[in-house]
Amino acid sequence: MTTVLNSVDDFAGEATAGLVLAHRRLVRAVPGGVVRATQASAPKVALVVGGGSGHYPAFAGWVGRGLADGAVVGNVFASPSARQICAVARAAERGRGVLLGYGNYAGDVLNFDAAARALRAEGLDVRSVAVSDDIASADGEDPSTRRGIAGDLVVLKVAGAAAERGLSLADVAHLAHLANARTRSLGVAFSGCTLPGADRPLFSVRPGGMGVGMGVHGEPGLSEDDLVPSRELAARLVAALVAARPAGAGDRAAVLLNGLGSTKYEELFVLWHDVVRELEAHGIQPVAPEVGELMTSLDMAGVSLTMSWLDGPLEELWLAPAQTPAFVRGTLVDDGAADASVVTQAHAADRPGALPALPGGDAWANEEHVAEPSASVAAAPVLLELTAAVHRALVEREQQLGALDAVAGDGDHGRGMVTGASAALTAVEDAVASGAGVGRALVAAGEAWAAKAGGTSGALWGEMLRSAGTTMLSGADPRSLWTVARAVSAAVDQLQAVGGAAVGDKTIVDAAVPFAAALQHAAAAGESLPSAWAAAAATARTAADGTGRMVARRGRARPHAERSLGHPDPGATSFAHVVAAVCR
Amino acid sequence: MTTVLNSVDDFAGEATAGLVLAHRRLVRAVPGGVVRATQASAPKVALVVGGGSGHYPAFAGWVGRGLADGAVVGNVFASPSARQICAVARAAERGRGVLLGYGNYAGDVLNFDAAARALRAEGLDVRSVAVSDDIASADGEDPSTRRGIAGDLVVLKVAGAAAERGLSLADVAHLAHLANARTRSLGVAFSGCTLPGADRPLFSVRPGGMGVGMGVHGEPGLSEDDLVPSRELAARLVAALVAARPAGAGDRAAVLLNGLGSTKYEELFVLWHDVVRELEAHGIQPVAPEVGELMTSLDMAGVSLTMSWLDGPLEELWLAPAQTPAFVRGTLVDDGAADASVVTQAHAADRPGALPALPGGDAWANEEHVAEPSASVAAAPVLLELTAAVHRALVEREQQLGALDAVAGDGDHGRGMVTGASAALTAVEDAVASGAGVGRALVAAGEAWAAKAGGTSGALWGEMLRSAGTTMLSGADPRSLWTVARAVSAAVDQLQAVGGAAVGDKTIVDAAVPFAAALQHAAAAGESLPSAWAAAAATARTAADGTGRMVARRGRARPHAERSLGHPDPGATSFAHVVAAVCR
Repeated sequence: MTTVLNSVDDFAGEATAGLVLAHRRLVRAVPGGVVRATQASAPKVALVVGGGSGHYPAFAGWVGRGLADGAVVGNVFASPSARQICAVARAAERGRGVLLGYGNYAGDVLNFDAAARALRAEGLDVRSVAVSDDIASADGEDPSTRRGIAGDLVVLKVAGAAAERGLSLADVAHLAHLANARTRSLGVAFSGCTLPGADRPLFSVRPGGMGVGMGVHGEPGLSEDDLVPSRELAARLVAALVAARPAGAGDRAAVLLNGLGSTKYEELFVLWHDVVRELEAHGIQPVAPEVGELMTSLDMAGVSLTMSWLDGPLEELWLAPAQTPAFVRGTLVDDGAADASVVTQAHAADRPGALPALPGGDAWANEEHVAEPSASVAAAPVLLELTAAVHRALVEREQQLGALDAVAGDGDHGRGMVTGASAALTAVEDAVASGAGVGRALVAAGEAWAAKAGGTSGALWGEMLRSAGTTMLSGADPRSLWTVARAVSAAVDQLQAVGGAAVGDKTIVDAAVPFAAALQHAAAAGESLPSAWAAAAATARTAADGTGRMVARRGRARPHAERSLGHPDPGATSFAHVVAAVCR
Repeated sequence: MTTVLNSVDDFAGEATAGLVLAHRRLVRAVPGGVVRATQASAPKVALVVGGGSGHYPAFAGWVGRGLADGAVVGNVFASPSARQICAVARAAERGRGVLLGYGNYAGDVLNFDAAARALRAEGLDVRSVAVSDDIASADGEDPSTRRGIAGDLVVLKVAGAAAERGLSLADVAHLAHLANARTRSLGVAFSGCTLPGADRPLFSVRPGGMGVGMGVHGEPGLSEDDLVPSRELAARLVAALVAARPAGAGDRAAVLLNGLGSTKYEELFVLWHDVVRELEAHGIQPVAPEVGELMTSLDMAGVSLTMSWLDGPLEELWLAPAQTPAFVRGTLVDDGAADASVVTQAHAADRPGALPALPGGDAWANEEHVAEPSASVAAAPVLLELTAAVHRALVEREQQLGALDAVAGDGDHGRGMVTGASAALTAVEDAVASGAGVGRALVAAGEAWAAKAGGTSGALWGEMLRSAGTTMLSGADPRSLWTVARAVSAAVDQLQAVGGAAVGDKTIVDAAVPFAAALQHAAAAGESLPSAWAAAAATARTAADGTGRMVARRGRARPHAERSLGHPDPGATSFAHVVAAVCR
């Protein structure tokens, strides 16, 4: 249960501000997240990490000397937006390029990839590592389908130490990928967690049971078994990780025993006592192990065990000193006097409030300088009405979409869609008030949606609206079916290009592609816009419902979607709701 | 819910062994707890801290340079025994005396005081500080009635830093008492915790409510209010602590925001953001604040706020460097190379198992060299039968006693009595097998009870049995009512001397005093032992039941006992059960 908060919407922002106030010597707030309070004077590669909130110390607790240069802070269990990532990367970069490091979740991959493209367009050298250590989420031997859990710490620690030593971006990225390839984790869940503002857990585990391999957002695992004594749990976890040991690995490993939130320290130490015996039985040497809360999931109960095989240069980097709010390694200076560097940590003048809005001028806002035709400006008030209708429709369906998403995902889809639509509505209002046409207003709506909503759906809707808007800027009458169909097709093409899903993967694509095709077909047949849109919306609805009846293929975006058979995909469903709202 | 364990009985011992395996560089296991892995070469005052388990990082997480020299580890929520405390103090002491530091709970006070007496008898210079920071538990202005919660950290940190500087025991103790007098805490509870092996929480808080001032074991607080937003909670906590600011305090304070277990980091940071604003409004400068899990209570949800006013030398000591498993302060050596001192942390050869039994020869075992009269040896098998009957009676009533104790205490009284009686039974068996008489067997029973059971009742029953046994050693026939009545009176006198409670305080004394008086009266009247004992046991039963109908006076031993009106005191009740079992 999340008990201490002021508002659900500001939870992550206020938590970040509080973190900075508690650790002013180590971190400072920037738009989108935090960076180190003191920067190295010599140029170096910047390690920028990030992900959703609710997992502290991941990720903002790991910013400081020897580890990350900056952390991007998303809303609870939601990827930060590409805009946030760009802002933190710009604040953190120190002249030798940026390595983006994050857990391998669909929303994070989309947003960090989008940010990488935007940063490269500004001339920065950018590489990425998506940590994928959770062996319970693997599709056979394909590591790209694995989620990232507590193994994040080892991979990012290795990368941070390499960057601190002055290695090149290529070398830092290479070492991070090497560490990721050597890192394996497996978790068990004992009970679910409750999102801020929710009155019931996001997911649950049968009392007396444990979800083996269940993800930190309740993603389905391998099996639900009966609880076992600590020594049996230790044996099973170690055996599974040893069985997944990468080829050629030695006998020395960084070992992490992680508590997810409500499984407390004494329990972790009891389990560690048993894990050490199992490691010895397998001839494995734990090197500088960590036992504690390393990657939490709010108040979820459960544990995970991580082994990262320290071949080659990895051990030296794992052992290197670091000093961050939540991770300290190394020897203290002890000069026998009070440490004058630990000083009073609160000053009213520079206390951050909510994260300020980004200043203008980033790569994504260039389109607004394009002049728009008068027909487009004249149609803008209609777009405003339609955006308001979409927002209302999503508000009405927030609970329903959240419930659908909770079946196989993290239950935040309704909240994310409402947040995005609300931001889009404000952006369209502002754009129309400033005399913009449909094209500029749609681009602004897309940027606002992506920036505020975050997560997978935020990134995808942001890309779709921006693509549609850009098409509209080219000048044709926005009230013609031909123009609308072309804009929708551009949006859906971009959706597929960015999201990587195909029809049949049981995603939003399953509803969007037939919708765009129906509009194109109607345009070729010379139909009217209102009737064509209504017919296409019905097609989208049928297709979305159909995702509840089909077996999906696995894919990186939704590796376990097939486990939710019988429940329509929430992304496809919300797409159908949005296009239906535009009919009204 | 405590999910990860092997056995309830070994939980604390296995957790301690796991802690040592995870932090071998900093701590090592000794009988009764842990001490620093590396010892200063120069003589210094040793700070020995301790208390029940379930509160990590309190107390074993605070052993290391700049903080404690040793920590005594009790069972979950139960004071360690005096024997454990003596053993850790002997292992930790470095030639300049020992400061014992612990939270001000009845069981801890009894056991640490008993240990202090025993250590002084061995020639060690020993002082004590019982931390009493919880303003919700105060009886008016009397700080001796306050419980110790997260303020432990500031008081013990100040003492540890003073000891590290080479100050004398008198000076270290003086500074610890000064810090304690300057430290105030207030907590709120959102939900209860579940003891290892239990299937329901030890206590609960109404959903949507918060227990203001509720103790970390569920002790009654000031009020149960509705949940409030973070900013209101911050305002209330800060205002209460400011109102309790000690006379003459300045505007600089060490401030701790503590999470009790399931109230997680992001929530703590949200609250800290609001607390800083309130501190500014009151003109208070937080110095090196700590926000995190500092004094947990298993998986309890809740927070506490601590302010310790840093007058005079206290600030410098609060800021001094420290390096322990759970508390690190200071600047890291950063020589650009891997830190060779962080090494592989597991070696099979010196892995501790369960805490080994104490070697013989400590101050408490001297009585066993006294020769016993033949009548006493002849009666010993009867004592063995009676001890077995007591053990059976307590096993039958374990649940009932636990439920009674859960009303105002921590629910472990039944478990503690069974553990103690079981240890006493084994000790009596061994004593009788080795030819001991009633006196030596009772002394052995008392030592075993105190050592195994811990907690308040463990200490009290240990003292009673030892006193009774010592009286029996003097030679009179143990089967005469006169001898038995004298032994019982000696035991009850010792109970009152050690426990500090009087008749009417709603404690075990309320049952024990009339029981002893009835036996004395019957002995003077020349009655037979069996009928006198039965009548006295009935008197004890009536007196114990009467504690459920009376208003108790406050006292350090049970400051809030009067809140459990209508429920008999569990200690008085178990006393009545024990003496009734002896009749059978």
